[in-house]
Amino acid sequence: MNDLLHEISLLSSTSAALDWDQETGAPTGSVNYRAKQIAYLTGKIHALKTSPEFQAGLATLNGPNQRELTHQYERATKLPQELVERDSETASLAKAAWGEAREKNDFPTFAPHLEKLLKIAREKADHWGYEDEPYDALLSEYERGAKTKEVATLFDSIDTELAQIAAAAVEKSSSIPADFLHGDSPIAAQQTLNREVAESLGFDFSQGRIDTTAHPFCTTLGPQDIRLTTRYEDHDFASSLFGVMHETGHGLYEQGLPASDFHLPSGQAVSLGIHESQSRLWENHVGRSRPFWEKWLPRAQELFPHLRSFDLDQFLPAVNRCAYSAIRVEADEATYDLHILLRFKLERALLAGELEVADVPEAWNSEFEKLFGFRPANDSEGCLQDIHWSMGGLGYFATYSLGNINSAQLFEAAQKDPTVSSAFAKGDFLPLLTWMQKNIHAHGSTLFPQDLMENATGSKTDPAPYLNHLRSRFTS
Amino acid sequence: MNDLLHEISLLSSTSAALDWDQETGAPTGSVNYRAKQIAYLTGKIHALKTSPEFQAGLATLNGPNQRELTHQYERATKLPQELVERDSETASLAKAAWGEAREKNDFPTFAPHLEKLLKIAREKADHWGYEDEPYDALLSEYERGAKTKEVATLFDSIDTELAQIAAAAVEKSSSIPADFLHGDSPIAAQQTLNREVAESLGFDFSQGRIDTTAHPFCTTLGPQDIRLTTRYEDHDFASSLFGVMHETGHGLYEQGLPASDFHLPSGQAVSLGIHESQSRLWENHVGRSRPFWEKWLPRAQELFPHLRSFDLDQFLPAVNRCAYSAIRVEADEATYDLHILLRFKLERALLAGELEVADVPEAWNSEFEKLFGFRPANDSEGCLQDIHWSMGGLGYFATYSLGNINSAQLFEAAQKDPTVSSAFAKGDFLPLLTWMQKNIHAHGSTLFPQDLMENATGSKTDPAPYLNHLRSRFTS
Repeated sequence: MNDLLHEISLLSSTSAALDWDQETGAPTGSVNYRAKQIAYLTGKIHALKTSPEFQAGLATLNGPNQRELTHQYERATKLPQELVERDSETASLAKAAWGEAREKNDFPTFAPHLEKLLKIAREKADHWGYEDEPYDALLSEYERGAKTKEVATLFDSIDTELAQIAAAAVEKSSSIPADFLHGDSPIAAQQTLNREVAESLGFDFSQGRIDTTAHPFCTTLGPQDIRLTTRYEDHDFASSLFGVMHETGHGLYEQGLPASDFHLPSGQAVSLGIHESQSRLWENHVGRSRPFWEKWLPRAQELFPHLRSFDLDQFLPAVNRCAYSAIRVEADEATYDLHILLRFKLERALLAGELEVADVPEAWNSEFEKLFGFRPANDSEGCLQDIHWSMGGLGYFATYSLGNINSAQLFEAAQKDPTVSSAFAKGDFLPLLTWMQKNIHAHGSTLFPQDLMENATGSKTDPAPYLNHLRSRFTS
Repeated sequence: MNDLLHEISLLSSTSAALDWDQETGAPTGSVNYRAKQIAYLTGKIHALKTSPEFQAGLATLNGPNQRELTHQYERATKLPQELVERDSETASLAKAAWGEAREKNDFPTFAPHLEKLLKIAREKADHWGYEDEPYDALLSEYERGAKTKEVATLFDSIDTELAQIAAAAVEKSSSIPADFLHGDSPIAAQQTLNREVAESLGFDFSQGRIDTTAHPFCTTLGPQDIRLTTRYEDHDFASSLFGVMHETGHGLYEQGLPASDFHLPSGQAVSLGIHESQSRLWENHVGRSRPFWEKWLPRAQELFPHLRSFDLDQFLPAVNRCAYSAIRVEADEATYDLHILLRFKLERALLAGELEVADVPEAWNSEFEKLFGFRPANDSEGCLQDIHWSMGGLGYFATYSLGNINSAQLFEAAQKDPTVSSAFAKGDFLPLLTWMQKNIHAHGSTLFPQDLMENATGSKTDPAPYLNHLRSRFTS
């Protein structure tokens, strides 16, 4: 069984390497063949994960590894090989079409691909089975043990207050000057700062690197090879810096997993909601805090002369300034979840067959207007902005808000440890990393996400610390 | 059979992608797992190429594809799977050790790896069998149909004259000023010129790109995905430009192969001696010619102000200036083959067991002194300079001089076509590419290298055009 699991890991990480390359500058002509390469590897992985040898091997395992691999085996054997390969190849082509459609602001280019992906998603949900709605079957691919209805209940319990906090934060921000953050920011200087910050947070560059991409992500090419990506705005160093801190959070989680168990669930990240709790922790709870900028503002001023005439009391409100934006990945902390509520609603409707693909742009724009008070300028800034659907990642978005909520809850729990909080106050974030390594990373997938949260903080996912955090940061 | 051949191509090109990544900046920590990934894929390829299905499928083919795949099957089945995997993993680790040894000028770090690689090379030669010496068995992996004895006879017939031309060229060069070529050459400006030149020669950047590496190479990640690599000296734009033209030559050959036959010998390059004829054609016969610089000197002067006060009659002799150098890849056209004669001699001795690994540095330095009149400053500039042995590429170097000889012969034949020669004189090199596409690229591996040469030029590999070219360029 060990050999088989190692083989699956070799194939998966190889596939991740091909995907990483495709996203970081592969020539356009490579798309079709690359799709074939990835589909081939994906098919091989599926064949191994559904093989009689795999099934027989399950009995040789025990504890959480047996539980998780049995679960994966059961899910995998429900999908025909043909569907798995079609899924992979369709997603590769759709991702390329999405890039083109977004660039040209041309939703109809992408629409037929989305149709195919939706059809595949429904087929998968049908094969897997679900209690209430197809979304259940897809969500549990990303968030082990989660139910759509419970997530919806959680979101419903906070959506009004989230909207109120966002409105208050935007209102208050109107008097905060932030234009001074913008100014000539050579990419080389941004790369220097990004790297120094990521390194100081504990990211090990002998086991990882940062590249440039259209849509930032973090991926794992091997147990000691974690790739972060970002993009650069030539007049806005903060955009890539916070992006890199976000991906660094993902990368620290991957680097904190037990490397010797790379081929086992006990060495693998447990869910997207937990993954996102780590990225948001370093991006927001660390990266937008006073202790962080007490330490890093002088360095930023060295690299970006336009910041030199501003002090911490001007700078800190500026990097926490809020405004309604059309673009999720550019959204500030106070308005971010509104973007997720929108996507969660549309995704459920698409999967339930209550919304047609052709109607997505209009549905997006009108829902968006209800939440934000304006309509996106075009589809590139509306329903075409995210890569996720093009990758077949339907049922995925909810995990972002789960991540935000988990993030605040974990940060609050960690801060109760005086070693963590006293170091934090002095701009030393390594004890916080050590706390996360011990309470989250080291566990791999041995606990369900909700048990992991309870184990680390004393309770399952609870929105109270998150709302407290947002209120205290944005409305007091 | 087609499915099987497609599968082998998917695996091979995936392995090439992993290797490309390892050479273009993968984190140091990735080395061990990357070696496992590549060894795994290599093992899979070998298993498929030696499978009963492969053997059975041979009967369904015909013509050159049947002939070449039968040959490959016979060679592959002679190697045990264990040896193939050990070869791949040893080479991956050796390559990393070589990089370190070269950086630290520490041959003993690399020596045990070279021992292992030599042992593997001898085992392979024993499995394959050979007529006169183990080198035969290895050489024919790179140069289909070639015999060591014939190559040695060819080299022996020209070595004296090569040394004389080199000496005359170096002597004559002592009065040619070339220091003015050196000057502040920002990497971004070098990249601009390299890309413009490669594109103008016909390299299609929608199906390829240029990256940075320690040891430049060209590799194929898919039928429409050809990667070139180079390295930069910050005061010497010419070093990376000629390097890129060299790799562009390899890339144009790969881009000129029939893409629909990517999985078949008819869509694959025939030999290293032919591959190198293409790279040396664009690097030397085009890149160091007067028509080329009539066209490109003004652009180089725009990008590199330190060139502006020099005209073509000063510039052209400067880029053709010769000097004895310790480093093969920096060697000029007139002294290059002396480096190959040295390596060919040592490789044969190592494989024949007439030279011990521990004695390589001294043997290198004393042979080098005989040819060049001085000793390399250290092993990094001596026996550690080349990546080839570390990749298990023993029996490979001779193909470089074969490439030089073929290159001149093909160039002379192409120039007999008035369309090619009149365009060439005007700085338009596309008809030359068209000639190569028709006479070399389009044939894939359907002809043996010597038959391909005869088909294209009227005779098998013949050193006369090469000696004429060197004499006319360097001694008249």
